[in-house]
Amino acid sequence: MSSRAAIYRLTHPRRAARGSPLLAILPELICTAGLLAMIADTAASAGSRADLFLSGIVTTVWGLFVAVYVLRIWSAPEAAARHASAAGARLGYLLSTRGWIDLMAALALPAGWLTGLPHRDAQLFAIVWALKYIRQSSGLTVLLRVIRRAAPALVGIVTLFLVVLLIAATLSYLFEREAQPEAFGSIPRALWWAIVTLSTTGYGDVVPTTIWGRVLAAWVMVGGIVIFALWAGIIATAFAEELQRRHFLRTWDLVAEVPFFQTLGAAAIADIVRLLHVRDASAGTVVMRKGQAGDSMYFIVSGEATAMLASKSVKLGPGEHFGEMALLFGTPRSATVVITEPSVLLVLDVADFRILAGRRPELINVIEAEGRRRREENAAVRGA
Amino acid sequence: MSSRAAIYRLTHPRRAARGSPLLAILPELICTAGLLAMIADTAASAGSRADLFLSGIVTTVWGLFVAVYVLRIWSAPEAAARHASAAGARLGYLLSTRGWIDLMAALALPAGWLTGLPHRDAQLFAIVWALKYIRQSSGLTVLLRVIRRAAPALVGIVTLFLVVLLIAATLSYLFEREAQPEAFGSIPRALWWAIVTLSTTGYGDVVPTTIWGRVLAAWVMVGGIVIFALWAGIIATAFAEELQRRHFLRTWDLVAEVPFFQTLGAAAIADIVRLLHVRDASAGTVVMRKGQAGDSMYFIVSGEATAMLASKSVKLGPGEHFGEMALLFGTPRSATVVITEPSVLLVLDVADFRILAGRRPELINVIEAEGRRRREENAAVRGA
Amino acid sequence: MSSRAAIYRLTHPRRAARGSPLLAILPELICTAGLLAMIADTAASAGSRADLFLSGIVTTVWGLFVAVYVLRIWSAPEAAARHASAAGARLGYLLSTRGWIDLMAALALPAGWLTGLPHRDAQLFAIVWALKYIRQSSGLTVLLRVIRRAAPALVGIVTLFLVVLLIAATLSYLFEREAQPEAFGSIPRALWWAIVTLSTTGYGDVVPTTIWGRVLAAWVMVGGIVIFALWAGIIATAFAEELQRRHFLRTWDLVAEVPFFQTLGAAAIADIVRLLHVRDASAGTVVMRKGQAGDSMYFIVSGEATAMLASKSVKLGPGEHFGEMALLFGTPRSATVVITEPSVLLVLDVADFRILAGRRPELINVIEAEGRRRREENAAVRGA
Amino acid sequence: MSSRAAIYRLTHPRRAARGSPLLAILPELICTAGLLAMIADTAASAGSRADLFLSGIVTTVWGLFVAVYVLRIWSAPEAAARHASAAGARLGYLLSTRGWIDLMAALALPAGWLTGLPHRDAQLFAIVWALKYIRQSSGLTVLLRVIRRAAPALVGIVTLFLVVLLIAATLSYLFEREAQPEAFGSIPRALWWAIVTLSTTGYGDVVPTTIWGRVLAAWVMVGGIVIFALWAGIIATAFAEELQRRHFLRTWDLVAEVPFFQTLGAAAIADIVRLLHVRDASAGTVVMRKGQAGDSMYFIVSGEATAMLASKSVKLGPGEHFGEMALLFGTPRSATVVITEPSVLLVLDVADFRILAGRRPELINVIEAEGRRRREENAAVRGA
Repeated sequence: MSSRAAIYRLTHPRRAARGSPLLAILPELICTAGLLAMIADTAASAGSRADLFLSGIVTTVWGLFVAVYVLRIWSAPEAAARHASAAGARLGYLLSTRGWIDLMAALALPAGWLTGLPHRDAQLFAIVWALKYIRQSSGLTVLLRVIRRAAPALVGIVTLFLVVLLIAATLSYLFEREAQPEAFGSIPRALWWAIVTLSTTGYGDVVPTTIWGRVLAAWVMVGGIVIFALWAGIIATAFAEELQRRHFLRTWDLVAEVPFFQTLGAAAIADIVRLLHVRDASAGTVVMRKGQAGDSMYFIVSGEATAMLASKSVKLGPGEHFGEMALLFGTPRSATVVITEPSVLLVLDVADFRILAGRRPELINVIEAEGRRRREENAAVRGA
Repeated sequence: MSSRAAIYRLTHPRRAARGSPLLAILPELICTAGLLAMIADTAASAGSRADLFLSGIVTTVWGLFVAVYVLRIWSAPEAAARHASAAGARLGYLLSTRGWIDLMAALALPAGWLTGLPHRDAQLFAIVWALKYIRQSSGLTVLLRVIRRAAPALVGIVTLFLVVLLIAATLSYLFEREAQPEAFGSIPRALWWAIVTLSTTGYGDVVPTTIWGRVLAAWVMVGGIVIFALWAGIIATAFAEELQRRHFLRTWDLVAEVPFFQTLGAAAIADIVRLLHVRDASAGTVVMRKGQAGDSMYFIVSGEATAMLASKSVKLGPGEHFGEMALLFGTPRSATVVITEPSVLLVLDVADFRILAGRRPELINVIEAEGRRRREENAAVRGA
Repeated sequence: MSSRAAIYRLTHPRRAARGSPLLAILPELICTAGLLAMIADTAASAGSRADLFLSGIVTTVWGLFVAVYVLRIWSAPEAAARHASAAGARLGYLLSTRGWIDLMAALALPAGWLTGLPHRDAQLFAIVWALKYIRQSSGLTVLLRVIRRAAPALVGIVTLFLVVLLIAATLSYLFEREAQPEAFGSIPRALWWAIVTLSTTGYGDVVPTTIWGRVLAAWVMVGGIVIFALWAGIIATAFAEELQRRHFLRTWDLVAEVPFFQTLGAAAIADIVRLLHVRDASAGTVVMRKGQAGDSMYFIVSGEATAMLASKSVKLGPGEHFGEMALLFGTPRSATVVITEPSVLLVLDVADFRILAGRRPELINVIEAEGRRRREENAAVRGA
Repeated sequence: MSSRAAIYRLTHPRRAARGSPLLAILPELICTAGLLAMIADTAASAGSRADLFLSGIVTTVWGLFVAVYVLRIWSAPEAAARHASAAGARLGYLLSTRGWIDLMAALALPAGWLTGLPHRDAQLFAIVWALKYIRQSSGLTVLLRVIRRAAPALVGIVTLFLVVLLIAATLSYLFEREAQPEAFGSIPRALWWAIVTLSTTGYGDVVPTTIWGRVLAAWVMVGGIVIFALWAGIIATAFAEELQRRHFLRTWDLVAEVPFFQTLGAAAIADIVRLLHVRDASAGTVVMRKGQAGDSMYFIVSGEATAMLASKSVKLGPGEHFGEMALLFGTPRSATVVITEPSVLLVLDVADFRILAGRRPELINVIEAEGRRRREENAAVRGA
């Protein structure tokens, strides 16, 4: 392995460190350390030993981020085999979302220093490091798609929210300005009360005291609840659709890699894809244990598993399946199966197996034939 | 029955006491008594008669839990007929979730005493008894599966929540630290305000007073509502899926026990399972009353019901069905049916009956033939 | 009409007064007047003229409720033609939910007087009149079914809620009892803080001040949000199912009354029922206006409509349909249709019409043939 | 173009200014300027320069609204070609929702002046301008339909909400009136506490202090959460249905304009419509970029796109499709496609493409044939 490849692996631990969970979350740990030190430093008295120590951590983490940025630029060509030029690969990284976030992380402290603020305040710019978490959360990309999908309705609610807010502030200004000139003396001031009430936060620092102000407040509170409910309802709907879509896409790609399914037509695959679940298993995971009741069967997409039968061990590789006997005959598991290399499995749940049995009997026949063959084999082995 | 079996039944009242609801919830009642006494004791003055009385209850409940733990270990072999050795059965219980919770319940008070705290404080460890409720709630296992199923998206939201919290605290520290050094003098302090606002709790003990602090607060409140709505939406989606899956599985197993459905192919069963609802009925329940309008028919999975016709009573056992005449001919119920032994019924609603009539006419024909036969029988009986 | 029948109509205005909305909500108006007077009376000074006036209203409303109860008992036989005996009909009313609520409404004030409280306080028992609203809201029966359907999961959440509440109170008692003995001096006292925080109400009268108390509070707030989200998710799921079921049932019954659909098999009807919406139209409603674009067609279940064509008016009765031409040919409405007697209509939306066109071409052919016939008829009329 | 047509275009910028986003939101910008000036004016001291300036803006915006109203009446006949008379077109505008809102906007200030209030207060009537936002938000019309669809259940919840509110106020009056006569001295006063608590706003200005008052408060808080959850659940359900319906309708109309689909039967179209998404693209949008991985194909409904192949550019007009090669063969995009005129596209996602491949193989065959033809063409071009 070239030194550039080594550097690439070092600066992209998630991809490189398959199976080593501690190494995989190392970037998050470093980022967390830097942010915690920055936060704690605001509570330390300036110039104390604690301050110096915490500032040191922040500066060290920043140094690491600068180094990572430089090294990632240098090693970028490792990632993209098909790119013709190293310069192109590097530009690609620089312009990617990840590249921009890395740049911002590296520029956080210098930007603070440039403002001429004292060092302790300049350090607050390190808050942009929090973006690194967001980048690495796959759940958030789902959320973003959901929000985009529900955008027209959400815009409608935001408009409604703002109009209600404005009307509430104007009316409360009318009703309360004489009783409480300090809090309701102008509409901008009344807006503070309106937002605190419409969001049902209710600090209680400003409370209407006139009859009409209270009647208005009651309506605003109920309005806040209803707008909130609309929000929740819209997002729930959009989320359900998006989740279904993502699951379908990922599973389809994996199903295409299992030879067992490749003889099927598109219609049958579309049917099956809806029923399969994807599961990533790290080495050492015990997928099933001999003698237990079984509620799912497994297809290996990639990786390796070992089935420990009574008399021998059988290695199972990509494309093979196991666990179908428990579903077919209702018997307890006849073998313990352990993952021996990090694997991607497709799981067929017993509920879905039965739905499939109804819709695609030909598929079940194939699985049954295979299951019967294995059972006889097991029996023969025991008999031997 | 051996004494060990008797002890087993005594320490597992839910399984043993079919039909005796008071006995079935005895463990919860004891647990509740212990917790209430522990709670009330914190309000009693130390050494008073009330204190002694309440401490006594707590200690008694603890004694019961120790006894139950020991007896359950001893009687564990009763539960598992197929286990070869008694030791294995006992180890199985010790390592089960239930076993761990029972152990913690038994060790609660000793753990308190070991800390060297005064007796009244040591007693607070009894709070772990609350776990016993969780263990026994089937609804909670559903919730856990739901949370596991929605895990990636939930992780995304929690990340978002933490990042927003951190940014809110940092900005509020910047905006408010001079106006309110006590509450916003460092980021850790500002975090208190941020969480109170982001969760829309709004105690009002810390309230921003500067213009920018209030603008920030408005955004944080709205952000809190949106994050919350995302949460609700995700959980709603995952919950709907899980509920459907559980219903399908349980009903399938029950349908397999009704001879009426056994002649059907897997596809037809999968169709029917979607439409049937499961209902547990205790002895004495009046399922239908003569002369009422009917909106569902019933299949008996286990237990026994008695149909009281004009001139005689007919016992109905597992596998039999009743109530179809009201659905078929729209006539009022022709008999009162009472459950005479605790039963599990499958219920086919009138809405679903009609859907089924469209999709599976052959099934309806069988039910109709049976219904017509019974009607003639009834008429013959009356004519006799 | 016998005097008993007249009394029956008078005391059941909703059923009798079809088309007279003011009369139909008369019971609610009376009930509201009574409750408002009772509420306002608590603000009037005892013995003042306002007090006497308001008490008078309350007593008058009570008198009406007593009279209604007695008259409803007497006229109950009017409702049930098939009951053999008048006594049976009366007993039926007495034991019905409505009967019990009427009894409670009639006994409200006497129950107050029996307690020996002063008249103004005795009057507070009139709060039970609020039950009358609940009884008359059809939406609430839906809600009750929803809650029953989701019961196991809701029990799980309530358990979780209580366990979290208990643990929060115990921990806050440990963390805060020294700093704030008044508010956290015992677990029962700490429970007040716990519920105010877990529900994210956040009065702010009790606020943790220690570091650990605040960390706990943050978790409790987030826990409150999550539990709430679970609640919303479960109810949303159950509600969606129930709504679908109700719509299906009501529409099925109405479809069965339209001759047009009676020749269809059960499968076709099940398909159509899913697509039709029910609409109650009072006399005078203009269902469609000549020249407008059309987005739905209508089937008359009961009542009467009049189509005003260019040269003549055509009466349309139960079983007939109209408005299909706009859907078939995309032309504007060719006639204005007014409801001339209170009617129940089945509405087929343009979106659903197209789905139906795909699934049931034979049905669309019939509608098309009818539409073409009418168009020619219209042309002939114009040509004449 | 006649001057009337020019005026019409000027006063309806959204319709006229296709592709010019700034002009399209001009009415909102003017409206926002007027509202902000009105709000800011309440904070300026009367008679100051700021006051005069801001009042000037408000009056100017009002003048614009009056002018727009008059000009829209005059130019209304431009909108409706088929109307026989100009008077009819004008009356149509006057009676439309838009006409009413424009009228109210124009009368806002005069109405304020008529009240005889000082000018600064009269200006507050300008709050009705906020209605202009609502009118122009398409999301809000969705929300209104959703609320109408869920109306019966929502009425049920509102009833429940009011009954719970009333009972809470009455009980809190009983429990707390002696301890806090100021806040709970009558039911109307107690209602303030009840609504603040039931909406979980929790100002904290009124807090129960008795044991029973606090137990009641706990129930009211939990009740508030549950009622809120019901609300969210109902709206979520209704929203999901409405969204599906709207999408179906709009897509159907667009599909009908694409010749490719016109040979298909209604059943096939209904199938496809469910899978297509609509996308509005402004000129200059890069729909796909050469070399990228592709996850959707596009049909042009209206407008124009240009595909930049290796050697030449191809213009694509309404009815043509592109991007299918990436889906069919899994190859990266072979061309960059840019929108050259504002267009409406139908997008077929890869997930949905595969579902379609299962359900409608004949359709995929046509797309495949077309794709193969294009690939050969591209190869021929390169070979040339």
